[in-house]
Parts: sequence; structure tokens; C-alpha cells
Amino acid sequence: MESAATPDLQSIWLREDGQAVCIIDQRALPFRLLVEELAGVEAVCAAIREMHLRGAPLIGVAAAYGMYLAALEAARGAGPGHLHQAAGRLVATRPTAANLAWAVRRQLAELADARSPEEAVRISLRTARAIEQEDVERCRRIGEHGRPLLEAILARNAGWLACVRHGTATAPLYAAHRAGLPLHVWVDETRPRNQGSRLTAWELARAGVPHTVIADNTGGHLMQHGLVDLVIVGADRVSRRGDVANKIGTYLKALAARDNGVPFYAALPTSTIDWSIGDGLAEIPIEERDAREVRYVEGLVGGQAAEVLVTSPSSPAANYAFDVTPARLLTGLITEVGVVPASEEGLAGLAPGATGKD
Amino acid sequence: MESAATPDLQSIWLREDGQAVCIIDQRALPFRLLVEELAGVEAVCAAIREMHLRGAPLIGVAAAYGMYLAALEAARGAGPGHLHQAAGRLVATRPTAANLAWAVRRQLAELADARSPEEAVRISLRTARAIEQEDVERCRRIGEHGRPLLEAILARNAGWLACVRHGTATAPLYAAHRAGLPLHVWVDETRPRNQGSRLTAWELARAGVPHTVIADNTGGHLMQHGLVDLVIVGADRVSRRGDVANKIGTYLKALAARDNGVPFYAALPTSTIDWSIGDGLAEIPIEERDAREVRYVEGLVGGQAAEVLVTSPSSPAANYAFDVTPARLLTGLITEVGVVPASEEGLAGLAPGATGKD
Repeated sequence: MESAATPDLQSIWLREDGQAVCIIDQRALPFRLLVEELAGVEAVCAAIREMHLRGAPLIGVAAAYGMYLAALEAARGAGPGHLHQAAGRLVATRPTAANLAWAVRRQLAELADARSPEEAVRISLRTARAIEQEDVERCRRIGEHGRPLLEAILARNAGWLACVRHGTATAPLYAAHRAGLPLHVWVDETRPRNQGSRLTAWELARAGVPHTVIADNTGGHLMQHGLVDLVIVGADRVSRRGDVANKIGTYLKALAARDNGVPFYAALPTSTIDWSIGDGLAEIPIEERDAREVRYVEGLVGGQAAEVLVTSPSSPAANYAFDVTPARLLTGLITEVGVVPASEEGLAGLAPGATGKD
Repeated sequence: MESAATPDLQSIWLREDGQAVCIIDQRALPFRLLVEELAGVEAVCAAIREMHLRGAPLIGVAAAYGMYLAALEAARGAGPGHLHQAAGRLVATRPTAANLAWAVRRQLAELADARSPEEAVRISLRTARAIEQEDVERCRRIGEHGRPLLEAILARNAGWLACVRHGTATAPLYAAHRAGLPLHVWVDETRPRNQGSRLTAWELARAGVPHTVIADNTGGHLMQHGLVDLVIVGADRVSRRGDVANKIGTYLKALAARDNGVPFYAALPTSTIDWSIGDGLAEIPIEERDAREVRYVEGLVGGQAAEVLVTSPSSPAANYAFDVTPARLLTGLITEVGVVPASEEGLAGLAPGATGKD
């Protein structure tokens, strides 16, 4: 799970002296477990942009700590505009993940009350820690709300269960696995970066959850043959109508789920919902990344990491990182406050202010 | 195009002395152009099984030559049962491609009349050559029948045109390109073996057809955004009702085409139709290959071919080679005798005997 709440491994934390943020460099997984220290906001920007860390919620936590490092830099004389410049640079690192802008906006709102650079440091640290802890708690609750869906299906079918992608999508699986439910997970490799075969598979293996890696092309065939009982995907941004931007290829699996009557859920913290967007397909910006990520594949050869060219040398490539699954294809959204329909009405109860709490 | 009719490169031919069949070893493409000589039926079986050559029509031609090599071996004293044993071994190499069994059956039917081992050699050579030449001609005609579909679309849209897969699927593209029509091809990489990014892209580059390689997950996103006007796929086996077995992932792209109103065709010689099968989803056997093909990716590093491990080392993988696209998702089938609806009625006119010729 690419979230601060990885079951037995923290994926982001503040160094003891408070002067740097530490992360697991996900580019090296599963072959090496590398810790990277990010000692300034620029290092945080580079880590997000170059995908040292991934998954919308974790990116949000990292951005929150990035704002704290920027406040430290401002207190050391980086100049009066430094915090707002840092906010702009953080938000620009990746265009699709909603949690990134959400975390930065929340820091800026809290920092508006700071009366001194030192107070800004204290406020931004408190806010970053709050966002981190809330993320852990949201992920736990997403797991708890998703678990009954798995239990209901396991009551009818023994064994092979869910086809998932990385991110908060795995929280319900871990919750079900801890509760002793027998499940098996089909893991899409998720080309071009192979987060599925490298990260999700590695995490499931560590947690002891039975799983099998498949090429991304395989999900439809499995669903046609009754080998998938439930699909859970993550989300990078969700529109207020329930359209879900997630890893490229999610839309294809959602079509196959509908065609075969397989329940299809997205699991996400409410911080992933972008209330300013209605039509996700038309309005959510889709990141285009370097074509090199398609043309080259990284893996292990002779114990060493290496990149191999996998396309005809003279052929160009295109690399769209996300797609948008229309709300009509989703059975529901699993959030930290419960499972809701993927519709404007279903989401309305989750909106800031809807509960009268804010 | 993985067929004997590759535009400027023969992909299978008889060695001048008639004692071996030569093929381009497709495993080395696009990085090296290697010719392999197959000097007996066992070598042909291994080449088909290990995918030195791929694509249902080409596999059929290779199997036909394999039967000729078996007839040579029989004439040299391999024993009376050798031809039928060879036929059984050839058919068992790969379970899904219909042309394989079709070519072997045709050889056996012709050989039934042979009165001596020497006559069997002559008959099997003549039959293999006929199958090869018919394949070239069928592929040319598929191209000619498919071209008007492209012309009609290009009359409405400039430029970006078709999302295809390998095989006879490319014949209409080459026909349209030779006729001067401006087109652009999105090429799925087709994990796990990457035939798309390695073979189709290389062939399109050689032919000068503009193209872009994409991860298999990308087709749905492109169709949602109006970037695909037509999809053409190949076929490994087609049921008499028009269900199409093709490279895994074809079904997912067909669902996306229907969801976005994009015409979706399969291009195939009629030898790919299996008249004994009605319900393709229930009855066409789907090959499961070694999980190693999913766990490792082959490519070029420092000018040398190398395989890299791309999954979590302790995670298992599954490797289904094909899926079945139900007839209801196909706009039509492009065959050497014309474009027909993908239905029992549409295909009926193509059946052996339907024209009164056999």
C-alpha cells in the first residue's frame, strides 16, 4: 500500500533532529530497501516528480512535510515569498493527484495565522504531523469499511477473491486478511512503471497475503471466467460526481467488471475528492510522463538493477499516467467515513461542511 | 505483420537444397535479424512452441513445412507411423491457433493418396508451398478489403487513425499506406512478450508508417478522448459464431471501443475459423504459458540482449496468452473474401462447401 499506513513499515517520517524528512525510495523496491533523506522543499519536489514516492495519499503527506521544510528555510532567511513559492512548486510536481494540492492548501490556510517565521515552523510541523496521522487513521478506516464487502463475498465463494491495484485499495485486503478471511489477490503489473508487480506484490508477500502477478491485459479474461469476485482500485483524484482518476488501465478493468457483473469499488480518503470538478473525464488533468518509461523497463539482472530497451529502437512512445473511470462504472466508493454510491448525491454527505462539523 | 507476407521480408522459406526450412527468429527482433534453419519436424515443433515465430497464419505455414520435413524423414526410414506422430506433435505445440491444426489436417488429407514415401515427399512439399502462397495472397486480399474501411474514416478525419495489434491486422494498414493515405498507428506493446513494441513497431518503422508505442493499459484513455478512429486486431481462432480468440487484452480494448462508439474489426484468413466451435468463450482452449514470461522482461542493455526480473522476487505470476472477444463486440471481420458481420449468419457464406466449390 503506497500510503503512510503501510502495515509494518512506515513509508515517511521526520528525522529525529526535525531537519529532514525520511522516505523509503520506492524506485529501488522490491530489490533494495533504501531510505532517502529529504533536507529541503526542493528535494521533496524532486522526490514527488521523479516518483521516489507514489500514491496520492502519500504524496499529500510528503507535500505537507515539504511545506514544513519550506517554513524552516523561511525562518533561516529564505525571504518573505518563500512559503508561497514553495507551495506553487509542490503543487506543480504532479498534476493529477488531488491530495497534493489539498495538503498544500491546508498548510497555507493554517499558516495564514502565523505571526512570526518561528511560529510558522511550529504550525507547519503540527499540521504535517496531523495530516500524516489522519492519513494512517483514514487508511485504517477504509480497511474497516471495505472488509465487510470482502466478508460478504467470501461467505459465498471460497478462495480467489480480488483484483486490485496499489494505494489505499489494499487497505480492505489487509483488514480482511488480519481477520483471518481466506483471500487471493490478482495483482496487475501496472505498466509502464510496474508499481503493481514491484510494490503491491512485494507488500502482499510481506503481509503473507496469497497473490499472483498478471500482465495488465489479463483482467478481462479472468473476469470472463469467474475468477474475480470483487475489484478494488485506488484513486488519484475523484470528481464530486464520482468519476475516478487512477492509474492508466483502470477504466478498461471497470468496463470488464461491468460486462461480467463483478462489483467494482474505488478506495480513497475523502481528501482525494476534488469538489471543484464535476465531469472528471473532461476536467481532471491527465499527466503525460516521459516516453522513456514506456521504451525502457527496469528490473534486476545478475543481482544488479538495469534498464532494458523493450521497443523497436526507432519507434516513438507515449506515456499517459492515468485514466478516468466514469462514475456509472463504479459500484461504490470506499472512504474513511463509509461506503457511498459514486454519484453527486452519494458524495454530497462527504463534502466539507456537509456534516455541520466545519 | 507476423505472416509469410511481411511486406519486404519473407518470414519463412524453404532452403535451396530443400532439406530445411528457414525462418526469421522473431525472438531476436528488433535488435538483431537472425535466420534460423529448421532441419527436421522436431525443430519446427520447438520453434513454434518457443515462439521463434508467432502469429496464427505463419504458424500454419510453418506446420505445413514441418509435415514436409516429416515426410522427408519418413522416406529416410523413420518408420510407418512417423507422419501421424509428427502431425500430433505439431498440433500439440500451441493449443489456441486454429491455423496450426488446419494446415496439418490439410497435409494429412492430401497425403492420404500417397502410394510411396517419395510421393508423400512430393505431395507434402507441393501442399506446403500452396499453403504458403495462399497465405501471402490471403493477406494481400485482407489488406485490399480492409483499405476501404480506412479510406472512409480518413475522408472524415485527418491523421490519427488506428489502434492495432500484430498479425494480419496490419495488412489493411500497409494497403492504405501504399495507397498514400495519411495514417497514424497506436501500437500496444502487448505484454508479456512485447510483440507489439518489438515486432509490429519495427515493421511499421521499416514500412515508414507513422506510429507510437503505448502501454497496453492506454487504449481506453485514447478512445475516451477521440484519439482512435478504428481498431483492427488479429485472430488466433474464430468460432463459427464470430467469437475471436486473440492476444490477451483484446477483449478489454473491444469493450472500450464499444463504450466509445469506435469501430472494432478483426482481420483474419478464413483458415483461422474453427467451424467445430460455436461458443468461443466456453470452447476455445486458452494457452497458459510459463510464468517466467511475466516475471522477466527481455530487452537491450549496453547493446546486448538481457532479461530483467520485474516482479517482487517471491511473488508468483500467471500467464494467459489469449482471451476471447465475444462476437457482439465486433463491428465485423475482415477476411480474404470480404468484410462480413461477426455472426453465425455472417460467417456462413465463408464455410467450406458454402460456395459449392468444395
